Amino acid sequence: MSILSDVLSTILERRYPWQPAREADDRSDETLIADLLSNAGEVSGLTSARELLDRYAAKDDAGKIAFFAHLAEKLDIDPEAVRAALDAYEAAPGPKSYRAFLEAAEPPRQELVRRLNRVPGATARLVAMRADLLRLLDRDDPRAALDQDFRHLFQSWFNRGFLVLRPVSWESPAQILEKIIAYEAVHAIDSWDDLRRRVEPADRRCFAFFHPAMPDEPVIFVEVALTRGIPGSVQGLLAEGREEVETAEADTAVFYSISNCQSGLAGISFGNSLIKQVVADLSAELPGLRTFVTLSPIPGLRAWMETEAIDPTRLDDEALRRTAASYLLTAKREGGMPLDPVARFHLGNGAQLHAVHANADISPKGRAESCGAMVNYLYDLGRITQNHEGFAKRQEVAASDGVRGLLPRNGRARKEGA
Amino acid sequence: MSILSDVLSTILERRYPWQPAREADDRSDETLIADLLSNAGEVSGLTSARELLDRYAAKDDAGKIAFFAHLAEKLDIDPEAVRAALDAYEAAPGPKSYRAFLEAAEPPRQELVRRLNRVPGATARLVAMRADLLRLLDRDDPRAALDQDFRHLFQSWFNRGFLVLRPVSWESPAQILEKIIAYEAVHAIDSWDDLRRRVEPADRRCFAFFHPAMPDEPVIFVEVALTRGIPGSVQGLLAEGREEVETAEADTAVFYSISNCQSGLAGISFGNSLIKQVVADLSAELPGLRTFVTLSPIPGLRAWMETEAIDPTRLDDEALRRTAASYLLTAKREGGMPLDPVARFHLGNGAQLHAVHANADISPKGRAESCGAMVNYLYDLGRITQNHEGFAKRQEVAASDGVRGLLPRNGRARKEGA
Amino acid sequence: MSILSDVLSTILERRYPWQPAREADDRSDETLIADLLSNAGEVSGLTSARELLDRYAAKDDAGKIAFFAHLAEKLDIDPEAVRAALDAYEAAPGPKSYRAFLEAAEPPRQELVRRLNRVPGATARLVAMRADLLRLLDRDDPRAALDQDFRHLFQSWFNRGFLVLRPVSWESPAQILEKIIAYEAVHAIDSWDDLRRRVEPADRRCFAFFHPAMPDEPVIFVEVALTRGIPGSVQGLLAEGREEVETAEADTAVFYSISNCQSGLAGISFGNSLIKQVVADLSAELPGLRTFVTLSPIPGLRAWMETEAIDPTRLDDEALRRTAASYLLTAKREGGMPLDPVARFHLGNGAQLHAVHANADISPKGRAESCGAMVNYLYDLGRITQNHEGFAKRQEVAASDGVRGLLPRNGRARKEGA
Amino acid sequence: MSILSDVLSTILERRYPWQPAREADDRSDETLIADLLSNAGEVSGLTSARELLDRYAAKDDAGKIAFFAHLAEKLDIDPEAVRAALDAYEAAPGPKSYRAFLEAAEPPRQELVRRLNRVPGATARLVAMRADLLRLLDRDDPRAALDQDFRHLFQSWFNRGFLVLRPVSWESPAQILEKIIAYEAVHAIDSWDDLRRRVEPADRRCFAFFHPAMPDEPVIFVEVALTRGIPGSVQGLLAEGREEVETAEADTAVFYSISNCQSGLAGISFGNSLIKQVVADLSAELPGLRTFVTLSPIPGLRAWMETEAIDPTRLDDEALRRTAASYLLTAKREGGMPLDPVARFHLGNGAQLHAVHANADISPKGRAESCGAMVNYLYDLGRITQNHEGFAKRQEVAASDGVRGLLPRNGRARKEGA
Repeated sequence: MSILSDVLSTILERRYPWQPAREADDRSDETLIADLLSNAGEVSGLTSARELLDRYAAKDDAGKIAFFAHLAEKLDIDPEAVRAALDAYEAAPGPKSYRAFLEAAEPPRQELVRRLNRVPGATARLVAMRADLLRLLDRDDPRAALDQDFRHLFQSWFNRGFLVLRPVSWESPAQILEKIIAYEAVHAIDSWDDLRRRVEPADRRCFAFFHPAMPDEPVIFVEVALTRGIPGSVQGLLAEGREEVETAEADTAVFYSISNCQSGLAGISFGNSLIKQVVADLSAELPGLRTFVTLSPIPGLRAWMETEAIDPTRLDDEALRRTAASYLLTAKREGGMPLDPVARFHLGNGAQLHAVHANADISPKGRAESCGAMVNYLYDLGRITQNHEGFAKRQEVAASDGVRGLLPRNGRARKEGA
Repeated sequence: MSILSDVLSTILERRYPWQPAREADDRSDETLIADLLSNAGEVSGLTSARELLDRYAAKDDAGKIAFFAHLAEKLDIDPEAVRAALDAYEAAPGPKSYRAFLEAAEPPRQELVRRLNRVPGATARLVAMRADLLRLLDRDDPRAALDQDFRHLFQSWFNRGFLVLRPVSWESPAQILEKIIAYEAVHAIDSWDDLRRRVEPADRRCFAFFHPAMPDEPVIFVEVALTRGIPGSVQGLLAEGREEVETAEADTAVFYSISNCQSGLAGISFGNSLIKQVVADLSAELPGLRTFVTLSPIPGLRAWMETEAIDPTRLDDEALRRTAASYLLTAKREGGMPLDPVARFHLGNGAQLHAVHANADISPKGRAESCGAMVNYLYDLGRITQNHEGFAKRQEVAASDGVRGLLPRNGRARKEGA
Repeated sequence: MSILSDVLSTILERRYPWQPAREADDRSDETLIADLLSNAGEVSGLTSARELLDRYAAKDDAGKIAFFAHLAEKLDIDPEAVRAALDAYEAAPGPKSYRAFLEAAEPPRQELVRRLNRVPGATARLVAMRADLLRLLDRDDPRAALDQDFRHLFQSWFNRGFLVLRPVSWESPAQILEKIIAYEAVHAIDSWDDLRRRVEPADRRCFAFFHPAMPDEPVIFVEVALTRGIPGSVQGLLAEGREEVETAEADTAVFYSISNCQSGLAGISFGNSLIKQVVADLSAELPGLRTFVTLSPIPGLRAWMETEAIDPTRLDDEALRRTAASYLLTAKREGGMPLDPVARFHLGNGAQLHAVHANADISPKGRAESCGAMVNYLYDLGRITQNHEGFAKRQEVAASDGVRGLLPRNGRARKEGA
Repeated sequence: MSILSDVLSTILERRYPWQPAREADDRSDETLIADLLSNAGEVSGLTSARELLDRYAAKDDAGKIAFFAHLAEKLDIDPEAVRAALDAYEAAPGPKSYRAFLEAAEPPRQELVRRLNRVPGATARLVAMRADLLRLLDRDDPRAALDQDFRHLFQSWFNRGFLVLRPVSWESPAQILEKIIAYEAVHAIDSWDDLRRRVEPADRRCFAFFHPAMPDEPVIFVEVALTRGIPGSVQGLLAEGREEVETAEADTAVFYSISNCQSGLAGISFGNSLIKQVVADLSAELPGLRTFVTLSPIPGLRAWMETEAIDPTRLDDEALRRTAASYLLTAKREGGMPLDPVARFHLGNGAQLHAVHANADISPKGRAESCGAMVNYLYDLGRITQNHEGFAKRQEVAASDGVRGLLPRNGRARKEGA
């Protein structure tokens, strides 16, 4: 019940963030950075940090690249210093020598980012800064090494223990809801009315992870439909005139859309925790729910069919389902993992292939990506650990007999023999 | 206005933290740790993490030391691997080689702590773990190097940008208030009635920093009195029958007690930000406030007088004030910083010595530490940066003419000549 | 800080309103009503009350009229009983005889409405019931007397002391915002984007009164623009590309739209309190605000011009302003009050006519009602009481010299001589 | 999710209640009252209302009596006017004549109280005013008729539909908790530690009704213990060293204390709704709860024994239980209702006598009132309506066979024959 104080303080913090009056500051970026990293930075640093963040925000792409270049080149580790500190630690291990090593082995730019983060509201701006970085620097650009520092810090800051799960509903603030519209990446939301159909009815739910330092920005969200039985078509699920299901009578929760919201958090994984937490919350609220299942796209199917020279126009529904099953069960990328990214995500979470549907997403995007086919992945809490381990260690794809039965006989044999 | 959702989700999170049913687990600590650090840890890890945290909580001191020893010795960096990664990075700098270096240079126990932190409520337990570590391992024990890893992580997690300032009042939850009673370290609170006198009247305020992942645990708090003029006695300030000041008529805010709450966060500094934020908030709420000042103990005075062979029983009030001024202005520790720790804190924040008082704290503790003397440090937002820099760079102690005038003439000369 | 508990309990209340399992109930409406009004109604009554509210909601208009007729005819006062109780009270005044009189003088239908109101969520349903009543029964229908009972109860329930002022912003729940769209009665809001322009910018505000028992239903709301100087055109105020004003630089708050939301609360006045509270809140937040003024329609101008045979097509801007001033200052209805309803409202609140503008509302509605003219009413807190009294007691219309100067010389003389 | 706005507005309202600057006001009370009741009162009235409330608060008892006398004598109904309005209504029933009647039949003091209530925070002050009235005027004083007006208004304002149920816990604001300590009327709470034992453990709960206009003042509260089986001793229930029950294993909720908090709300009944709502909430939260039962005092037992010349010192436990059962089942007051007030309350709510215990409350108060005996009343939701009706209509006391079996054989026969 510390919530009230939370509320009050949040309001205070937003209203009166401490902001020393700033005069025009003619120091160079480099000087500001040096100042912020100096010992004096503890007190005067907030002013420098704000100034730097504001300047960054005003830069064009060339300016941003120059800023990144400075960080990459001038605030890198000093290999000689690392070696010396490491030698000293090895010679005389102890708190002091260890601390000296840790300090040498961490590039100053990590501390710079931490100090920038002291400014109220900075976290969202630093996430946006990394989004710029990923957009502007080529993966193989040596300066892109800098991204590893952001990644390292964000992995610590956006630890599951710091994230908060929130239901998003028609009672949520409009400024959150407009972000749901903007970030929906799987089945586009085309208006406020469309949004309302996804969050207002009692048999439609939405949950998002938020970080306390970015309270207006969802990090990732999932849309859920409560149904009787497992649906095989997303258009059916979202149809305007559909009949609502009494929540007490629903036996199935369908995760039909999962969207990451922040490109600046790429590579930092939340989806696994999100789905499990939502399964737990919904189970507690609605004990009648027995089945937790996705209705997922198969984004790589059509492209794979092309490489396999399979002509989609010649496949009836059954053949399409067989093809999709074959793709999901047997198409692998280097290392033995499934070719399909959505499959990798859910199988990696410990889910299993449950059913394959034709005519399941007849939107232009659905047709283009997978000839309209979709797949259900089943989250069976009792089998998640086992599925996950089989997948992570032995690349085994857990699948129902139904899906497995879609494979040609020898395909199945091979699989079973694996 | 994301607050409502906050509230709801917080409640949900507390009610139904996802907790897979756990059976008796006969794996050793070492196996659990290895499992948690493995790639498979993402999914099955939460169970191992909970188990480890629960086991740790049940250990006696010997068990805890053994646990720390394991982390210190088995999960340390591998110098050879660091060297190899460093060489490779130097030879071919780029994202991949840099990532490999970062991974090698970070001991696996840091990742262990991060993974433990995924468990709901774990942050407070990890802070308590570090409190154990500081208590159980001698500073010079090589295994105490492990503390640097906690410190490194906590400095990142408890970044100012993640802390929330909350007013604490008679309207705060009892479970927060009882912690204020427990943690008050300067002027003890001896009952709920005493507490009420410090947080209920309109001219008494209390503010604390909280971390969102430890919402029931203040991190640091400050007690404030709104007054007319600068007071020179803490007993006067806290007297039961004192007359309340109309807040609109108050011209001064007195910070008369600052307490750190978490020994597991030792060495991670918040006091500076706390005071400045409170100054900003109070200024915004009460534009009549002109002066922000502390009423602070001088904890090292008596001990220093002993080393200087000054007999306190022979000093009248004026002589005591002169002695205190001399101590604060001229007594230094190695490196030139003031001997007095409270002086170091406030001067380091950019405050300045404003006045010295005799008979200001006549409690047994006050008499024992400083013969009853106290000091005001003035926070003048317009001079904070300048004061801080003079102090940090040149060990200059900012002081009012009044305090400086208490020095003997040649002492002043020395000072001025410095 | 009782807020937290509020939050929790609100959630609890909404989730688990106590609802005894109800079987099909074949009692007649009349029996249910009698049961609810009986002494036994305290315990079993909640079931009857729910059943009655649900049945009412399912009725068509004819059924509703029959329901109202029953209340009007069978649950009226009993004149003989009133007379007898009155005689007894007069003969022997005292608590018992007085209580007996009060009970006799109150028709049972008032108690019926109070008992219906015990059902969670009933208040909004009873407000809707009165809206039906006003719609379905002619004002002169003797059964419309029943409306006086609703009015009497609602005046007590919706007492200013029970209303809560809330800012409405882009951070408000979508379900509140959609009601702002629906209820805006002065300058229609045609989309979510239009709404956002009225509530998101820092120089645009919206405030509503809510009743705690109808938390999702605004009772009345006002839209405010913060400006520099007093604007003379609503289209200018709402223009898409307009430049935002820094709130710290705004000197004027313009109330440009006030809308009652609940037709079931007709005749129960809140607007006066709403405006004064908003003036007080804005003054406290933004000390730079000096002027509080409306930009109001003149809904009766065109109709009055027709009765006066003034041809709008022949008026230039100046002539239109003169005509409008004449209408506002001299056109009266029976009893001496201004003919214009908006003028009656603001002048009755103690505001004064400040300026008249041509080309101020060029929307079709603005042209149709007032040839595009609008008026500013000034709320000068220092003169409100005096203005109000002059208006209420002597029908004096407070007006600036500027507006008064628009009258023909003899019109002014008449006025001044009045 | 209108909660956030709630929170914000509540804060705003408390911080800046609109308060026109008031100068010294030398009008008499009578003039202020007349002003407040005048038509002009709508605008200038708030000032008069505040002034009146402040003056009232400053009066001594004699002044309060004079104030009440003025209301009783000068603001009473005018019988002639009532008669005339009644005649007119009877002659020509219709909205206008009915409204005139309603206005005549309501004494002006009711409107006075409603207008006083417009001042922020006034509701609690008016409740306190009625508490004064009940304390200062004798029940038979003709001026006490005035109390009927307060009662009438409060019954409407404190309608169940406007009350909010809130859990009270160790996480509640201290200012609420101190009121629980102050108002506990059954088993005194003697310290904050004692309070904590009643609200902090997971198997101890407390719930209160609050009114939104008095958010810091509980109206009535109930303390609940979750147990396995039905306890027969309150000291056992509250023992310091008792073992906590896992909430999931509790099968019984024991209501061991119910306290009304506001003497100014005497005669306005909430207890019935409170218990039922708490039963509903606890059932929803803890499906394992099967039995809802009180552990109640028998306050009239000892006094009745004296009138029956039963010497308590001569009764063993079994005989005491028989005597208590006899008292509860057969001792009646005029009209046939049970003599015991607690019995009347619970039986009137539809509960039934379940068991009688000796040595159940061995506190001095328990011994003095009932020789230590206590009773369980069982709330069986399935039988509440039936029990209530039998009790209300036919004065039947519902009791278990166990309790009934404590009666002497012929007593039972009489009962069964009744």
